[in-house]
Amino acid sequence: MDRKGIFRKRKPPLGSVPGTLSIDEESPFPKISLIEFDRDYLKEEIIRNVENLASVISATDRVHWIDVQGLGDEATIRKLGEVFSLHPLALEDITNVPQVAKVEEYDNCLFVCLPMMRMEEDSVVYEQMSLFLGETFVLTFQERYGDVLDPVRNRMRRNSRIRSMDNDYTAYAILDTIVDNYFPVLQSIGSELEKLEEELVESISREKLKDLYLMKQKLAQLRRLVWPTKDVIGRISREESEYFKDQTVLYLRDVYDHIIQSLDMLDISRELSSELMNLYLSSTSNRLNEIMKVLTIISTIFIPLSFIVGIYGMNFVYMPELSLKWGYPVVLIVMGVVVFIMLLFIRRKGWFRK
Amino acid sequence: MDRKGIFRKRKPPLGSVPGTLSIDEESPFPKISLIEFDRDYLKEEIIRNVENLASVISATDRVHWIDVQGLGDEATIRKLGEVFSLHPLALEDITNVPQVAKVEEYDNCLFVCLPMMRMEEDSVVYEQMSLFLGETFVLTFQERYGDVLDPVRNRMRRNSRIRSMDNDYTAYAILDTIVDNYFPVLQSIGSELEKLEEELVESISREKLKDLYLMKQKLAQLRRLVWPTKDVIGRISREESEYFKDQTVLYLRDVYDHIIQSLDMLDISRELSSELMNLYLSSTSNRLNEIMKVLTIISTIFIPLSFIVGIYGMNFVYMPELSLKWGYPVVLIVMGVVVFIMLLFIRRKGWFRK
Amino acid sequence: MDRKGIFRKRKPPLGSVPGTLSIDEESPFPKISLIEFDRDYLKEEIIRNVENLASVISATDRVHWIDVQGLGDEATIRKLGEVFSLHPLALEDITNVPQVAKVEEYDNCLFVCLPMMRMEEDSVVYEQMSLFLGETFVLTFQERYGDVLDPVRNRMRRNSRIRSMDNDYTAYAILDTIVDNYFPVLQSIGSELEKLEEELVESISREKLKDLYLMKQKLAQLRRLVWPTKDVIGRISREESEYFKDQTVLYLRDVYDHIIQSLDMLDISRELSSELMNLYLSSTSNRLNEIMKVLTIISTIFIPLSFIVGIYGMNFVYMPELSLKWGYPVVLIVMGVVVFIMLLFIRRKGWFRK
Amino acid sequence: MDRKGIFRKRKPPLGSVPGTLSIDEESPFPKISLIEFDRDYLKEEIIRNVENLASVISATDRVHWIDVQGLGDEATIRKLGEVFSLHPLALEDITNVPQVAKVEEYDNCLFVCLPMMRMEEDSVVYEQMSLFLGETFVLTFQERYGDVLDPVRNRMRRNSRIRSMDNDYTAYAILDTIVDNYFPVLQSIGSELEKLEEELVESISREKLKDLYLMKQKLAQLRRLVWPTKDVIGRISREESEYFKDQTVLYLRDVYDHIIQSLDMLDISRELSSELMNLYLSSTSNRLNEIMKVLTIISTIFIPLSFIVGIYGMNFVYMPELSLKWGYPVVLIVMGVVVFIMLLFIRRKGWFRK
Amino acid sequence: MDRKGIFRKRKPPLGSVPGTLSIDEESPFPKISLIEFDRDYLKEEIIRNVENLASVISATDRVHWIDVQGLGDEATIRKLGEVFSLHPLALEDITNVPQVAKVEEYDNCLFVCLPMMRMEEDSVVYEQMSLFLGETFVLTFQERYGDVLDPVRNRMRRNSRIRSMDNDYTAYAILDTIVDNYFPVLQSIGSELEKLEEELVESISREKLKDLYLMKQKLAQLRRLVWPTKDVIGRISREESEYFKDQTVLYLRDVYDHIIQSLDMLDISRELSSELMNLYLSSTSNRLNEIMKVLTIISTIFIPLSFIVGIYGMNFVYMPELSLKWGYPVVLIVMGVVVFIMLLFIRRKGWFRK
Ligand SMILES: [Mg+2]
Ligand SMILES: [Mg+2]
Ligand SMILES: [Mg+2]
Ligand SMILES: [Mg+2]
Ligand SMILES: [Mg+2]
Ligand SMILES: [Mg+2]
Ligand SMILES: [Mg+2]
Ligand SMILES: [Mg+2]
Ligand SMILES: [Mg+2]
Ligand SMILES: [Mg+2]
Ligand SMILES: [Mg+2]
Ligand SMILES: [Mg+2]
Ligand SMILES: [Mg+2]
Ligand SMILES: [Mg+2]
Ligand SMILES: [Mg+2]
Ligand SMILES: [Mg+2]
Ligand SMILES: [Mg+2]
Ligand SMILES: [Mg+2]
Ligand SMILES: [Mg+2]
Ligand SMILES: [Mg+2]
Ligand SMILES: [Mg+2]
Ligand SMILES: [Mg+2]
Ligand SMILES: [Mg+2]
Ligand SMILES: [Mg+2]
Ligand SMILES: [Mg+2]
Ligand SMILES: [Mg+2]
Ligand SMILES: [Mg+2]
Ligand SMILES: [Mg+2]
Ligand SMILES: [Mg+2]
Ligand SMILES: [Mg+2]
Ligand SMILES: [Mg+2]
Repeated sequence: MDRKGIFRKRKPPLGSVPGTLSIDEESPFPKISLIEFDRDYLKEEIIRNVENLASVISATDRVHWIDVQGLGDEATIRKLGEVFSLHPLALEDITNVPQVAKVEEYDNCLFVCLPMMRMEEDSVVYEQMSLFLGETFVLTFQERYGDVLDPVRNRMRRNSRIRSMDNDYTAYAILDTIVDNYFPVLQSIGSELEKLEEELVESISREKLKDLYLMKQKLAQLRRLVWPTKDVIGRISREESEYFKDQTVLYLRDVYDHIIQSLDMLDISRELSSELMNLYLSSTSNRLNEIMKVLTIISTIFIPLSFIVGIYGMNFVYMPELSLKWGYPVVLIVMGVVVFIMLLFIRRKGWFRK
Repeated sequence: MDRKGIFRKRKPPLGSVPGTLSIDEESPFPKISLIEFDRDYLKEEIIRNVENLASVISATDRVHWIDVQGLGDEATIRKLGEVFSLHPLALEDITNVPQVAKVEEYDNCLFVCLPMMRMEEDSVVYEQMSLFLGETFVLTFQERYGDVLDPVRNRMRRNSRIRSMDNDYTAYAILDTIVDNYFPVLQSIGSELEKLEEELVESISREKLKDLYLMKQKLAQLRRLVWPTKDVIGRISREESEYFKDQTVLYLRDVYDHIIQSLDMLDISRELSSELMNLYLSSTSNRLNEIMKVLTIISTIFIPLSFIVGIYGMNFVYMPELSLKWGYPVVLIVMGVVVFIMLLFIRRKGWFRK
Repeated sequence: MDRKGIFRKRKPPLGSVPGTLSIDEESPFPKISLIEFDRDYLKEEIIRNVENLASVISATDRVHWIDVQGLGDEATIRKLGEVFSLHPLALEDITNVPQVAKVEEYDNCLFVCLPMMRMEEDSVVYEQMSLFLGETFVLTFQERYGDVLDPVRNRMRRNSRIRSMDNDYTAYAILDTIVDNYFPVLQSIGSELEKLEEELVESISREKLKDLYLMKQKLAQLRRLVWPTKDVIGRISREESEYFKDQTVLYLRDVYDHIIQSLDMLDISRELSSELMNLYLSSTSNRLNEIMKVLTIISTIFIPLSFIVGIYGMNFVYMPELSLKWGYPVVLIVMGVVVFIMLLFIRRKGWFRK
Repeated sequence: MDRKGIFRKRKPPLGSVPGTLSIDEESPFPKISLIEFDRDYLKEEIIRNVENLASVISATDRVHWIDVQGLGDEATIRKLGEVFSLHPLALEDITNVPQVAKVEEYDNCLFVCLPMMRMEEDSVVYEQMSLFLGETFVLTFQERYGDVLDPVRNRMRRNSRIRSMDNDYTAYAILDTIVDNYFPVLQSIGSELEKLEEELVESISREKLKDLYLMKQKLAQLRRLVWPTKDVIGRISREESEYFKDQTVLYLRDVYDHIIQSLDMLDISRELSSELMNLYLSSTSNRLNEIMKVLTIISTIFIPLSFIVGIYGMNFVYMPELSLKWGYPVVLIVMGVVVFIMLLFIRRKGWFRK
Repeated sequence: MDRKGIFRKRKPPLGSVPGTLSIDEESPFPKISLIEFDRDYLKEEIIRNVENLASVISATDRVHWIDVQGLGDEATIRKLGEVFSLHPLALEDITNVPQVAKVEEYDNCLFVCLPMMRMEEDSVVYEQMSLFLGETFVLTFQERYGDVLDPVRNRMRRNSRIRSMDNDYTAYAILDTIVDNYFPVLQSIGSELEKLEEELVESISREKLKDLYLMKQKLAQLRRLVWPTKDVIGRISREESEYFKDQTVLYLRDVYDHIIQSLDMLDISRELSSELMNLYLSSTSNRLNEIMKVLTIISTIFIPLSFIVGIYGMNFVYMPELSLKWGYPVVLIVMGVVVFIMLLFIRRKGWFRK
C-alpha cells in the first residue's frame, strides 16, 4: 500500500531475456504445501522435493492444491515451472510484482493473478496472488508467508461441499475468499474517512487537510489495484474457459458481484473524499469571511471615532470648541451617534447574522 | 438511506461456504402470504406450513404470488429454498443485503433483485426486494414488513386486467409499482433542494453549506442504488427471456422508460446541487469583496485624516501653524479636500456600485 | 421550461393499471382536425365525431393527417385510441407528460414522441408532440392549442412536393419542422448569454451571478430535452423501419444532422456559460486583490507616519526634541523620507502596475 | 471563426420545403473552372455555360475536376444540381453553411463536406468545402473565392503522379491538402498561447485573463469544427466505399493520421489553456497572500506602538510617568522591545520567506 | 520532450505530393548496420552500399536486422525505400517526425512506429523508432545516433534464445526493449513529483507552483506519446497479423501488459500532480486565513484601546476626568478589561487554535 513502491518498481534489467526472474531479496524462501483430496480422502503434506510433485498431480481423480508461499529462491521457482510446464512469461509475472491483475490462457493451464489484501493492526497488508488452474491441479504463488485462505483449508478438512467438487471449484473458492477480503480493507478506509468527516465538520486545520490528501492518495491506489480485477473475473465468468465448468461459472458470477460491490464502496469513498475537500475549501473561505467581518466591524466603528478624538487633540491656539463648557459632552454624544449609524449600516449589511 | 450502512455492511464470515446466509438479527420473522388466482377465482391465504406450497404451485393454470415479508428465520428461508429449488447463491443474495440490483437466470426461474423505496414521514424507507419468476409462481422476499405493493393486490382483488394474465404479468406489475415509487422519493429530494436553493439565494451560512453537503451525499447514494436497475430492467426488456412473454416485454419497456426518467430527475438534482455549491462559493467570495470594500473605503478616508490631525497634536514648541488664527479652519478645509479626492478615487474604482 | 415542473411531475396514482391516463386539468378540450390529400385532392375538416375517422383512414391511397390539439378530455382520447388501435401504454405516454423523447414500434404503427418548442415573446413555449405513423395515417397529439406546423400545412395546400408523397413523408415533414424550430430557441439563449458575457466583461455583480446561475439551469434542462431526440431520430433514420420508405430515410438523416447541430449549439452555450462562471470567479478574486492593494498601500504609508506624529504628541516633560527650533521641520522631512522609501518598496512589489 | 456566427446561423425559413437554398447575400457570384486531364492531356477552362458540362463529364477515361467558387446565384447552383443529378438535400447542405462535417453516399456520387481553413494576416479564414465524387468527376463547392488548393492544381499541371491516377485520387489530393492546412492554423494558435504563457508567468492582469478567456473560446470552436472530420475521413478510409479504390484508401488513412495529429495539437492547446487558467488563479491568490502579509506585518508592528504613544498623549493631570526624567527614553526602549518581539513572531510565522 | 516542438512541427510544404520527405537539417547522416544470424552463425556489418542489401535479405533462413540511425540524407532513405519496396507514405512517416504511434500493414511488410525514450543526465531523450517487419528482415529507422537496444544486440551475440528464433521474434525483442525503457523515464518523473510533494508539504511558494505547472505539462505530453502505443501493441498482439507467429503473439501480450503498467504509472503521476495543485491552493487559502487572523486579533485589541487613549488626549478645557486623581489608573484598568473581553471573544471564535 506504499505509493512510492509504484514509482520504484523493482524490475529485471532493461531489455533482458523474456522469462528473466527478478527475485525480491526480502522475499522469504518458498514454503510449499500440498492438499490432496477427494470425497473420501484428504492428505496435507509439506513438499520438500519439488520433483515428486510430477507424479502426484498425475492422479486425475483428485484435487491437488499446491500452495507456494515466498518467492525467495529462483531455483525452486524454476523447478516448479518445469514440473508444471509453466510458460517463462508466466514465471516472470509471478516474481516481477506487482503486476496489474490479469488472466491468461496457456496451453496446459489458466493463469490468473490478482491482489490479495488483509488488515493487520490497522494497516493494509498487500501481496500478489498468482494462481494456475490445470486439469489436475491448482497451483498458487504468494509473495510472503501468511494469507487469507485458512477458511478454504478448513472447509476442505471439514468434509464440506468443496470435497466433492473438482479442481476448478477449489480455484473458485480461493478467488472468492480473496475478493471477500477486499471488504474489510475498504470498510476500514471508509470508517477512517467518516472519522475525518466528523472532525472536519467540527473544525478545520492544516493537519486534517494533509490527512485528507493522504487518504485520497490511498483510495486512488486501491482503486487502481481493484479495478482490473473486474475485467479478470468478468472474463472467466463469461467466456466459459474450458478450465471452469458451467456449474462453477455461476459461482464466479457471484464473485463478480462482490467485485462490483467493492468498486462501489471505493467510489463512494472517493466521492466522499472529494466532497470533504470541497467542504474544507468552502469552510476555509467561510472562515476568512467571518474573520474579515470582525476586523471590518471593529475598524468601521473605531477608525472614525479615533479621527474625531484626534481632531480635538490638535494643539491649535484658536479652536473655539475646546473652551466651550459643553464641548466634551457634545463630542461624546456625536461619537455615540456615529456608532449608532455605523451599527445600523453593519446590521443592514447583514454582518451580524451568522 | 444511511450512508454508514454501506461501509458497515453485515456479511457472512469471510471465506464461508457459498450459500451461507447472514440473517440480520433485527429482521422480523417471515410472514408468508399467498395470492392464487385466475380469471374467475381468487384466494388469499397466510401460509404457515411452507411445505404445503409445493403442491399449490404445481397448478399450472393459475397465478401464484407468494410474498415473504421479513427474513428473520433462517430455517424458513432455507425451507422455501428447497420447495422452490432456489440456488444457494440466490438464497445468499436474498439475505445478504444490500445487493447491487441484478438479474440472474437460473435453470427453473428468473431472479431479479432491486431496491424498493418509499417516503415515510419525510424520511426514505429502503429495503431490498428479491423476486423469483417461475413457470407457475412469483415469489418475492422483502427485508421488512410493509411495502408499496397494495395497489397491485387491489388490482388482483378488483378483477382487473391482471386477473386474466399470466405469472409474468404479475411480476411486471410488481416491478412497475416498485419503480413508480422511486418518483415520490426523488420528488421529495428535489423539493428539499429547491428550498435550499431559495434560502441560499437569500443569504449564505455555514449551516446551509452542511445541508448542501449532506444532500449531495444522499443524491450520490440514491444514484448508486437506482443506476444498476437501468441495466436490470433493460436486460429483461430486451433479451426476451423465456420467463417473460413477448407481450409483457412491451410493458417492461415502459418500466424502463420510467427508470430513465428517474435517473434523469436524479441527474437534474445532482447538477442543481453542484451548481448550488458553485453559487455558494462565488457568493462567499462576493461577500468577502463587499466586506473588504467597506473596510478599505473607511480606511482610505480616515487613515490619512487621522495622520493630519496627528500632526497638529504634536507638542513641538515651534510649530508656527498652531498659533495662526486660520490654522484650524484651514486644516479642516484641507481635510475636506482630502476626503473629496478620496471619494473621487473610490468612485472611479467603481466601489460604490453594487 | 419551468424547472420545478420536473420535480413535480403529475403522475397517475402510484401502481395504477398500465394505461391509466393522467389528464392535466389545465389541458384544453381536444380539437381534432383532418387533412386528407393526394396529388389532385385536398380536404381540410374539423372532426367532431371521432368514430367517423375509422372509415376515413381506410382509404389507402391518400395521406391522412389527423391532428389533435389539447388533451383535456379522457373520453375523446380513449375513443381515438380505439379507432386507431393504439396500445394503452402509448395512450399513457401521450397524456402523462413530459416523457423523455422515444420511439416505439407497435404492431400497427410507429410511435414517436419528442419535445416541440417555440419562442413566444421572449419565453420558450414547450409542449410534447406525440406522433403515430400508420399505413394510411399520421396521427399527432399536442398538449395545447397552437404549434409550429403551419408551414407544413401550407405546403400541403400549395400543392408542393409533399402532395405527391406518402404518409411517411408527411411524418418526416412534421418531425423536420419541429426539429428546425429548436434553432430559434437555442439562438435566443445564445444571444442572452452573449449579452451576459458583454456585461460581465464590463463589471461584476451579484445580480449577474444569479442570472448566470439561472441560465446554466436552463441550458442543462434544454440539453436534457433535446439530447434523447438524437437517439430517436438516429434510430428511425438507420433502422429502416417498415413505416419509413428508403427514400424518406435519406430525409430523416437530414433531420438527424439538424439535431446534431442543435446539440452542438447547446454545447457551445454550455461551455460558454462555464467559462463565464470561471471568468466571474477570477474577476472577483482579481478585484479583491485590487481592493486589498489600495488598503495596504494606504496603510503602509500612513500607519508608520501616524506612529511618528504620535510620538511627538506624548506629553513627557523631558522630551528634548520638542523644544528644538528645528524639531518640527526635521520630523516633517523624516516623514517625507519614510513616504519615499515606502513608495519605492510598493513600486518594487509591482503594486502600482494594473 | 467568429463565435457569434454560430448563434446567428442564417437558415432558410423554418419548415420550408427540403431543398430550399438559403443563399448568403454576401456570397460572390459562382466562378466555375474545369480541369480535365489524363496522363497525356490537360485542359483548364472557365465554364460559363453550365449545361456544357453534361457532355464533358461523359468522358469516362479522364479526370474532371469542376471547382465552383462562390454560391451567390441560386439559379447556377440549381443548374449544376441538375447537370450532376445532385440530391436536393445535398444542394441544401452546400449553401446552408456551416454544416457539421459529414459524408453521405448518394446513388450516383459520394458527398463529403468539411471545413477549409487558412491563415490570412494573423486571422483564420474559414469556409465550407463541399465535394462530390462521381464516376467521372470531382465537383467542389466553396463559399468564397480563393482556397488552399493551388498546390494540387500545380501538381496536375506539372505532370506528376496525380495525372496518371483516377478521379478518386484527385478527391484524395483535395481532402489531404485541406486537412494539411489545419496545421498552420493550429500552430498559430499554439504560438499565441505560448506567448500568453510567457506573459502570465511574468505578471498577471485582468487583460491577460480576458485574452485567455477568448483563446479558450476559440479553441473550443476549432475543436468543434475539426472533431467531426475525424469520423468523416475515418469512415471513407475504412468502409471502402465504391467511389474510392483500395489503393487510394491507403492514402486516405494517411489523411486520417493527420487529423488525429491535428486533434492532438488541439487537445494540447486546450489543456495548456486550462492549466494557464489554474496558474492564473493560484497566482492571484498567491499575490493576495503577499499583499496581506505586508499589511499585517506593518499593522502588527505599528498598531501596538501607536497605542503606547497614545497613552502618553493623554492629558491626565496625575500621570507620574510624564514628569520622570527617564520616562521618554524608557518608553522608546519599551517600544524597541515590542518591535523586536513582533519581528521574532513574524519571522517564526515564516512571513519573511518568499 | 520539448513542448514547443509540437506546435512547431516541421512539415513538408502544404499540399505537396504524398511521399515528400521533410528531412530535418539537424538529423545526422544515416549509419546503416546489419546483423545477420541464425542459430550457428552471426555476422555484424556496417553497410555502405545500400544496394547490396537486396541480395543479403533474399536469404530466407536467416534473420536480418538492418538498423538505420540518422535520417539526414534523402537519397539514402529513398534508396532504402526502393530496396525494401517501402510505400512512399511509410517513407514519409519515417522522416516527418513526430508521428502519433501507429501500425500499418502493407503488401510486403508490417510497419510500426512508436516513441523511443531514455534518460540521459536527468533529461528525457526522445526520438521516433520506425520498424518494418518483412518475411526476411527487420528494418529499423531512428532519428539520431544511439538507442536503448544494446541489450538486444548483446543477446544476439551471446547466442541466447533469440538466435534460434525468427525475424518476428527480433521485432518483438526490439519493441519489448523500447517499451521497457519507458519505465525509468516514468520513475524519474515520479520521483521528481514526490520531491515536489515533500517540499510542498513543508512550505509553499510561487517557484514551486511553476515547477508543478511545468511538471503537469510534461506529464500531459508523455501521456499523449505513450497512450497511442497501447492501441498499436494491442492490435498486433490480438490480430495475429501474418508477420507475427502465434507463439510470438504471446510475447507481444507481455509487452502490452507493460504498456498498461506504464499508463498506470502515468495516471498515478497525473492524479498526484492534480492533488498537489489542490493541496497548494488550499494551503494558500489556509495561510491567508492565518495571516488575517493575526491582523484581526491585533486590530481588535488595539484599535479600541487607541480610541480610548485618544479620548483623553483631547484638549477640551472642561474634561472633569482629566483632573481626577484616579483618572489615569481607572482608564488603565478599563483598558485592561477591554483587552480581557476581546481575548475572551477571540478565544470563543477559536482563532487561537491552530
Ligand atoms: Mg521482459
Ligand atoms: Mg502470503
Ligand atoms: Mg464472495
Ligand atoms: Mg476494466
Ligand atoms: Mg466507477
Ligand atoms: Mg460467499
Ligand atoms: Mg451473491
Ligand atoms: Mg417490506
Ligand atoms: Mg411505471
Ligand atoms: Mg449500468
Ligand atoms: Mg410509458
Ligand atoms: Mg447520467
Ligand atoms: Mg404505470
Ligand atoms: Mg400545441
Ligand atoms: Mg430540418
Ligand atoms: Mg443518447
Ligand atoms: Mg442537410
Ligand atoms: Mg455533447
Ligand atoms: Mg429543411
Ligand atoms: Mg474559397
Ligand atoms: Mg496530409
Ligand atoms: Mg466523432
Ligand atoms: Mg503519414
Ligand atoms: Mg480529445
Ligand atoms: Mg502529404
Ligand atoms: Mg537513435
Ligand atoms: Mg517488457
Ligand atoms: Mg486519451
Ligand atoms: Mg486506445
Ligand atoms: Mg509479464
Ligand atoms: Mg486515467
